[in-house]
Amino acid sequence: MALEKINQVNDIKQILPEEYETLAAEIREFLIEKISRTGGHLASNLGVVELTMALHLSFDFPKDKIIWDVGHQAYTHKLLTGRKAGFDGLRKYGGMSGFPKRKESDCDCFDTGHSSTSISAGIGLVAARDLIGTDEHIISVIGDGALTGGMAYEALNNASQLKKNFIIVLNDNHMSIAENVGGMSEYLNGLRTNEVYTSFKSGVEQSLNRIPGGVYLANQLKKTKSGIKQLLIPGMLFEDMGITYLGPVDGHDIAKLLDVFRKARRVKGAVLVHVLTKKGKGYAPAERHPARFHGAEPFDIETGLPKNKRKKANYQDVFSTCMVKLGQRNERVVAITAAMPDGTGLKRFKNMYPDRFFDVGIAEGHAVTFAAGLAAGGVKPIFAVYSSFLQRAYDQILHDVCIQNLPVVFAVDRAGLVGSDGETHQGIFDLSYLSSIPNMHVMAPKNKWELSDMLKFAVEFEGPVALRYPRGEAYDGLKEFRSPVVYGKSEILYEEEDIAVLAVGSMVKTAEQVRRRLKEIGYSCTLVNARFVKPVDTDMISELSREHRLLVTMEENVQSGGFGEKVLDWTVRQRLPVQILNISIPDEYVEHGNVDILYEEVGIDAESAVKRIIEKYVTLSMKQG
Amino acid sequence: MALEKINQVNDIKQILPEEYETLAAEIREFLIEKISRTGGHLASNLGVVELTMALHLSFDFPKDKIIWDVGHQAYTHKLLTGRKAGFDGLRKYGGMSGFPKRKESDCDCFDTGHSSTSISAGIGLVAARDLIGTDEHIISVIGDGALTGGMAYEALNNASQLKKNFIIVLNDNHMSIAENVGGMSEYLNGLRTNEVYTSFKSGVEQSLNRIPGGVYLANQLKKTKSGIKQLLIPGMLFEDMGITYLGPVDGHDIAKLLDVFRKARRVKGAVLVHVLTKKGKGYAPAERHPARFHGAEPFDIETGLPKNKRKKANYQDVFSTCMVKLGQRNERVVAITAAMPDGTGLKRFKNMYPDRFFDVGIAEGHAVTFAAGLAAGGVKPIFAVYSSFLQRAYDQILHDVCIQNLPVVFAVDRAGLVGSDGETHQGIFDLSYLSSIPNMHVMAPKNKWELSDMLKFAVEFEGPVALRYPRGEAYDGLKEFRSPVVYGKSEILYEEEDIAVLAVGSMVKTAEQVRRRLKEIGYSCTLVNARFVKPVDTDMISELSREHRLLVTMEENVQSGGFGEKVLDWTVRQRLPVQILNISIPDEYVEHGNVDILYEEVGIDAESAVKRIIEKYVTLSMKQG
Repeated sequence: MALEKINQVNDIKQILPEEYETLAAEIREFLIEKISRTGGHLASNLGVVELTMALHLSFDFPKDKIIWDVGHQAYTHKLLTGRKAGFDGLRKYGGMSGFPKRKESDCDCFDTGHSSTSISAGIGLVAARDLIGTDEHIISVIGDGALTGGMAYEALNNASQLKKNFIIVLNDNHMSIAENVGGMSEYLNGLRTNEVYTSFKSGVEQSLNRIPGGVYLANQLKKTKSGIKQLLIPGMLFEDMGITYLGPVDGHDIAKLLDVFRKARRVKGAVLVHVLTKKGKGYAPAERHPARFHGAEPFDIETGLPKNKRKKANYQDVFSTCMVKLGQRNERVVAITAAMPDGTGLKRFKNMYPDRFFDVGIAEGHAVTFAAGLAAGGVKPIFAVYSSFLQRAYDQILHDVCIQNLPVVFAVDRAGLVGSDGETHQGIFDLSYLSSIPNMHVMAPKNKWELSDMLKFAVEFEGPVALRYPRGEAYDGLKEFRSPVVYGKSEILYEEEDIAVLAVGSMVKTAEQVRRRLKEIGYSCTLVNARFVKPVDTDMISELSREHRLLVTMEENVQSGGFGEKVLDWTVRQRLPVQILNISIPDEYVEHGNVDILYEEVGIDAESAVKRIIEKYVTLSMKQG
Repeated sequence: MALEKINQVNDIKQILPEEYETLAAEIREFLIEKISRTGGHLASNLGVVELTMALHLSFDFPKDKIIWDVGHQAYTHKLLTGRKAGFDGLRKYGGMSGFPKRKESDCDCFDTGHSSTSISAGIGLVAARDLIGTDEHIISVIGDGALTGGMAYEALNNASQLKKNFIIVLNDNHMSIAENVGGMSEYLNGLRTNEVYTSFKSGVEQSLNRIPGGVYLANQLKKTKSGIKQLLIPGMLFEDMGITYLGPVDGHDIAKLLDVFRKARRVKGAVLVHVLTKKGKGYAPAERHPARFHGAEPFDIETGLPKNKRKKANYQDVFSTCMVKLGQRNERVVAITAAMPDGTGLKRFKNMYPDRFFDVGIAEGHAVTFAAGLAAGGVKPIFAVYSSFLQRAYDQILHDVCIQNLPVVFAVDRAGLVGSDGETHQGIFDLSYLSSIPNMHVMAPKNKWELSDMLKFAVEFEGPVALRYPRGEAYDGLKEFRSPVVYGKSEILYEEEDIAVLAVGSMVKTAEQVRRRLKEIGYSCTLVNARFVKPVDTDMISELSREHRLLVTMEENVQSGGFGEKVLDWTVRQRLPVQILNISIPDEYVEHGNVDILYEEVGIDAESAVKRIIEKYVTLSMKQG
C-alpha cells in the first residue's frame, strides 16, 4: 500500500515513480470509500488526484503556497498534508472542513469557498512575497468554470501588469468548454512547446508582409510578446499581458505534469499551465454523472445510488414546479441562473422555455444588472441564486435594480444555515444586506405552499422583491394555513395571549414546535408567520403588543441588521408596552456541520428557544409582579 | 447658430451635414460655458460630442435605446434630447442630474453611475426586446477604463452566447491604453473592413498547411467564426464569441462615425464599434489636464483655473500626507486603489513608494481579495476606495477578508453625502453593510487630526478595519481634543447632563454646533465622539444613560443597520433608563444637490437636529412629569 506511506506533508516525495499510479488508484479508492460514508465533493476531487500529486511532487509545502479556487477540490491536498485521519469527520461538526482552512493546516495558505478568488489572492501573496524578499512559489489552481467570473479577469489583468513570478494552473475539466476547444488547444500546445511555434510565427509574418500595411503590423507584432493577441482581440484585457501559456497537458499523466511544472518554475513572470482533467475520473458513476457527484450525499459504492432515499420534495423541487407554471401562465416570465441550473431547480424551466432561460455563467454581478436590463425592457426576470453567492451582487442590487425600482424577483435559495459547506456558504446575511437597501422588499415562506403563493405574488409585484427559502426538504406542515399573501402583512396562525412568537420563513416550523412545548408546560402562546421582513408588519406588532407581555422574534439570519432589530426598533419608537426577545444567529461566522447540530449550537433550535423564552418570561413576571 | 435649432430629440436630423462641425463647436462652447458656472464632468463630455451627434443622427430616440456606461458623459445626449434649459441647474438640488435618469427623459433608458454596467444592462434590454418582438436598436457606450471591470467581461461573455443584435460602442479615449494598441488597431481595422482581411486569413491558412498538424488546425479554424481567437487565447471568454469588431474610427470625424454606424446596424449578432476620442477635446486646459477637468468645480474659461480657491485641506490631502508618513515608518505598508490614485490622495504615496503602490484598475472586488492575499502574505494593505464603490466588494470583504480575520485597512473615502453626483454616489450605506459583517471593525474620525491618529491605529491593528471619512474639506475644529485612540472606546468632548449627543465622524462637527445652540437656549448637553461604530462603546452608553434622560445619536448613514440602531439595541437589551433619539438619513436614496442643502433635506443639519432634540426632550419632560 503506497497510501500507507503518506502520513504528513512531503511524504509523497519518498514514493517511487513506478508507484505513482498505484498511489493515485489508492487515493481514489480512499476518497470514494470515505465520501460514500460522509458525503462530500466527489467528482471534482477524483478529477485532480494526479494534478495534486504532481503539485506536491514539484513543490515544497508549506513553504510554497497553493490557493485552490472554490476549494472543494482540495481533498487530495488534505490527504497529502497529514489529514488522512480527518476524512472520517469530513464536513461534520467539529470535524475536518471540506474546504481549505488556514486554521486547519499551515499547508492551507488561503481560505476559499466562493468562485474566482484564487488569482486575486494568489497575486496578493506574490506581491507580498516580493516585498518581503522570500522566494516561495505561489500557485493558484482555478477551474475553467471559475474563469467565467469577472473577478478572475480583473485579477489576470492585474497579474499581467505586475510581471511577477506566479503560477496559475487552469484545471480544465471540459465541463464548460466545447470539445473542439480542447482539440484546438492540443495543437496549440504542440505549436508552443517546440520549434513549430516559431515556424508558425514566421508564417504569419510572411502573410503580413504580402498585404498592405502588413509590414508595419508585423513589426509591431514583434515588439510585444502578446502581439498576436492584441492584433486579434480588440480588448483591453490581454493587452500587454505577457502571461506565458503552457499546455494543455493531460491532467492524469503524472510524468507530463511533472515536466510542465518543471518548465513553469523556470518561467519569469506569470505563467498559466493548462491542465485537462476529467471530473469523476476513475469511478464510473461519477464519470457518467459528474453533476450528481459534485456535492454528493452518502452513497452505495456499487450502484452509485444515494443511501438515504429522499421521501419529501425539496424547496428546489417546489420552486421548479412553480417556475414551470408561472412560465406557462405568463410569457414574459424569464429565469436567470449563474451556473446553477440544477442546484436551483431551473432545469425544467430551461427545457420547457429555452428562449426564456439564461445561464450567464458564474457571474452574479452581471446576472443582476442583466436582470435589471430585462426588467427595464418590460419582461419579468426571476434570478434564482444561493444566498451567499448573491453577496457578490450587493452593489448591482442597490445601484442597478433598486435605485430604478425595477421589478426583478430574487429567488434567494440556500438561505439560512446550509450545513456541511460551512462558513463560506451559510446564507445568514441576506436579511441584513437586502433589507437596508431602499425600495427592496423581502419575504420568506413558512412552507412549500407559501413558496408557491409568494412567488406568484412576487411576479405580479411592481418592484424588486427577494424571496428567501432554505436548502433541502420543503416543510409541508401547517398546510391548513394558506391565507392570501397581502403586501406587507403577516399571517396569524394561532391567537392566544401572554407570549407571541413572530417567526420568519424557515423558523415558523420551529416556532410551531416551540409553541407546542410552551403549551405543554402551561403557557399561552400566539404564533405569527411574519411573511414580510421588509416592510415589517408594524400594525401586527402594535396589535400583538396590546395582548402580550413578551414578543419573541425568530429568524435564521444574524442578529445585526436582521428582522429582530427591526421589530425591536418599532416597539421602542412607538413606546409599545411589550418586551422583546430576539432569537437569531449570533453575529459570527458559523462553521460546517449537520444543520440540526448547528441550530443547537447557535441557539435557534426549538429547545433553546423554549428555554430562553421561559427565562425571559419568568424574569418579566418577577419584575412586573 | 446651429444649436438654436436643437430643441428636442431628433432635431439634429434637420441639421445639414455641412453644419455638423459648427454644431459640434457650438455644443462645446455651450458645455464649457455652462460647466464653468455649475461645475460638472467636462473632459469626458467634450470627448464625445461628435460621437453623440453621430449616434443621434444614426438612430431614432426614444425608440432606439442607448446606455451610457458610468453616465457622466451624457451631457451632449441631454442637450440633443430637449434638456438644453436644464444645464443652468445641472447637478443642483432639484435640477438636472449629471447622469442619465429614466425619470428625467424617455430618451434615458437605464440609469447609470458606477462603472462597467452598460453591457449587462444592454444585453438585458436586448433579450427583452427579442422576447417581446420589437426591433429597436440597443447601444451600450462603454469607455476603455470601464472595460477593465470584470462585470464588463461577464457581460461580453453572455452577449456572445446570446447571439442577438446588439451594438457596443467602445469609447476609447487613450486614458488607459498604451499608444501602440491604437496603432495596431488602425491596421486591424483596415484588415477587417476590406478584402485584405480575406487575404490575411488565407495567408494564415497557408502557413498552417505547412506545419505539422496545421491542416487539422486550419479546418477547425474554418468551423468557428472566432477560431483565430480561440487558437491564440487559451481562455474561455472569447471562445465562440462571434462579436463583430468594427473600427477603430476617429471619434471626432462625424462622416466616418455615420459610416461605421451604418455598417453596425446591419451586423447580425453583437458588434463592437471601436471609437477613438480625446478627453477634453476642443478646450485646451481640459486637453492638457483631463483628470483635473474630469469632475470640475466652477472655473474661469480663460485660464481654466477654479473660481473658488480652496483655503483648507481636504480629507484626501490629510490622508495623502498620513500615507506618506506611514509608508516611511513601516516598510510593510502598501496602498491599493481601484483606478483612483488622484481622487483618493494616493498619488504621493505612489510617487514615493512605487513598489508598494498598486492600481488594479476599476476592479473593487479584485482589489479587496488582492488585499486579503497581501495581508495573508504578511504585509499591511490599505485599500483607499470611495464608499459607494466599495459596495462592489461586499462579498470579498465578507468572504475573503473577514472570515480569515485578515488585517486589511479600508480607507473608506466619500463616506456620507457626496452632493452633486447624486443617488449612485452617496456613501450612505457603508456603516450598515460593513457593520453586520463579523470580525469587521468600523471607525470614523471627527476631524483631520483624528483621521491621522485612526489611520495609525488601523495599521497597527490585527484585524480588518474600515475607516470612513467624507468628501471634501477636512474639519479642523475641536483641535484641543486629541486623546489616544483606544480600541472600542469613544471620546468625551464635553461632559454635562440631561442630554447627551453621541456623534459619528463627520457628525461630530455638526453635533458641536447642536450643543452650542442647545446651550444658548439653556439646555445642558454632553458631547461624545463615538469613534467606533463597530464595536459600539457599550460602556459609554451605559454610563451616559445614568446621567442623562435623552441620548441622541447622529450619523451620516441610513437609519437601517446603522449606528443609531445599535445604540438603541443596547439600551433596550440592558433596560437602560434613557430615551433614544436617532438622527440619521432616512432609508431612501438621496438625490443630487449641494451637500448643505441635502443635509437640511434629510434632516441631519444642526438646525433640524436641535429642533428634533428639543421636541423629544419636551415630550419626555411632559410624560415624566
